[in-house]
Amino acid sequence: MQNRHIILKQRPDGLPRLTDFALEDSPIRALEEGEFLVANSFIGLQPAARIRMGTGDSYAAPTPLGTPPYGQTVGRVVQSRHPGFAEGDHVALEGAWESHTISKGEKAWAFDPQIAPESYWLGCLGVSGMTGYVGVKEILKAQAGETIVISAATGAVGHVAGQIAKAIGCRVIGVAGGAEKCAAAVTEFGYDICVDHRDPAFAERLAEACPDGIDLDFENVGGPVRDAVWRLMNPFGRIAICGLISEYNAEGAVSGPSWQLALARRLTVRGFLLRDHLELRPDFIAEVSDLLAKGAFRTRETITDGIEKAPSAFIDMLQGRNFGKALVRV
Amino acid sequence: MQNRHIILKQRPDGLPRLTDFALEDSPIRALEEGEFLVANSFIGLQPAARIRMGTGDSYAAPTPLGTPPYGQTVGRVVQSRHPGFAEGDHVALEGAWESHTISKGEKAWAFDPQIAPESYWLGCLGVSGMTGYVGVKEILKAQAGETIVISAATGAVGHVAGQIAKAIGCRVIGVAGGAEKCAAAVTEFGYDICVDHRDPAFAERLAEACPDGIDLDFENVGGPVRDAVWRLMNPFGRIAICGLISEYNAEGAVSGPSWQLALARRLTVRGFLLRDHLELRPDFIAEVSDLLAKGAFRTRETITDGIEKAPSAFIDMLQGRNFGKALVRV
Repeated sequence: MQNRHIILKQRPDGLPRLTDFALEDSPIRALEEGEFLVANSFIGLQPAARIRMGTGDSYAAPTPLGTPPYGQTVGRVVQSRHPGFAEGDHVALEGAWESHTISKGEKAWAFDPQIAPESYWLGCLGVSGMTGYVGVKEILKAQAGETIVISAATGAVGHVAGQIAKAIGCRVIGVAGGAEKCAAAVTEFGYDICVDHRDPAFAERLAEACPDGIDLDFENVGGPVRDAVWRLMNPFGRIAICGLISEYNAEGAVSGPSWQLALARRLTVRGFLLRDHLELRPDFIAEVSDLLAKGAFRTRETITDGIEKAPSAFIDMLQGRNFGKALVRV
Repeated sequence: MQNRHIILKQRPDGLPRLTDFALEDSPIRALEEGEFLVANSFIGLQPAARIRMGTGDSYAAPTPLGTPPYGQTVGRVVQSRHPGFAEGDHVALEGAWESHTISKGEKAWAFDPQIAPESYWLGCLGVSGMTGYVGVKEILKAQAGETIVISAATGAVGHVAGQIAKAIGCRVIGVAGGAEKCAAAVTEFGYDICVDHRDPAFAERLAEACPDGIDLDFENVGGPVRDAVWRLMNPFGRIAICGLISEYNAEGAVSGPSWQLALARRLTVRGFLLRDHLELRPDFIAEVSDLLAKGAFRTRETITDGIEKAPSAFIDMLQGRNFGKALVRV
């Protein structure tokens, strides 16, 4: 049995290119006690994988050259020497761009495919969805009646954040790229308004959409989108930094907005990573499963077939060509 | 009876110049019911007054041309039609660069000159000191054993913040300009180390002073000093933006540091203004009075004689030429 995987051949310079990656097969080693082997069905593509392809200051070790980039996966256990995971179990786990993953059970969760399809456990019920949930509920502590702006509004994180914020009773303003995504944000995901950041008059459109200013910013994008939001923040506004996808391909450090406004308006800006909040997983699964069961929650996925297409699907995602969670079917 | 005051003649372009101000006398009007008149003994000079001399985005209305710049004052009540303040009372209040202030009692506090000299109620027991107290205790919630960096370490706010943090049990690192201030920070105010930001190797010296990184930043300065602190912040570090004195004279918005580090290290950055925390005043007065009574608290003032000297004293302060609280004796 072979493990088919994509390796990082060289560190990308700006936007990754196909030549930064290569497809390889390698034999699967025998399991040790306490390990299990998963045959992956889907690989989740995450913007954070781009951060790890560089060597800059980050919260995770860089992906070593010659090894597969980081990615959550879902699949079934095909061999087990681990007491908590049995052959046939459906699991979501911290894997990589590979057909098979050996796990010791850390950051691996069995799930019930009766609740939702397998792929959902990488998307709206997976780390992306949970990131949206944690940002809105735990970091921003969004309250009914507050105006929240969510950038990358239809993305894997954003579309969950938006629906959680709506369920709380916020006024929910999305930012997305292009008319199609903006329309879907409103009709599918319940955003009150969604503003197209490709519109040359984006900043003015955003201001019109937020006549009472912005109380909360769920920041996924950074750069000029963030700067336009920043200027509209209300006194005592809270900002959760979840991602800065527009900055990941940049060379060197990108400046942030002026701190004088943070002082004048007494803003709170807080960076967060899901890994520090994993104790909230049961609450998250219960809440989103409940919304799904009631038909009060919508999701979208962009599925690419074939592990050999993972690099091109990843590059597309970094350019915003996906809609909802970007997945590769192995 | 005349009110002698300094007016803002024109808005400064960068560092204020003496020609931006003028000395004037005007008659004092009769009191209305609910007002009292204070003969000011001291005027406190605050960096925030520079913000109000511009017209940029700020938390306070700009000082109108032809009127006196903002400044806290202390003095004695010489006439009163207010039930809460009697002739002879010692009061600290929100005044201006003027010999006499008419107050309705908002943001005015009677004080007991037996506890500490009159001028202290503008400095270590006044709004400057209370800002240091609120930042350390309420905004940063400093804990024993944490490493805190305080910029403008010997300034009106900083020297109080430093002593409060030391009393909590923090490791307290100061940043100040010049050997004299750095020495005094350690010998007078109990800083563990104070690093000179004028040293060309400042960033290296700061890193050496913080071998375990920085948990808390009490930011008074902004600019390159802030940027050096930023790079040394530990995961889950907290940053209180109290002031950005190095940026107040700049034209246009000054960029802040990269948000990617705030995300990677899960930092919390929070701007604050004293006005939102006035309910803590009794706690603050009790704590600092107690430290003063025990001889466990030191302070410094730079007093300039004559209201006509207020502009030059203010310009000196913006360049860091004062030591501790900058005051004008009327």
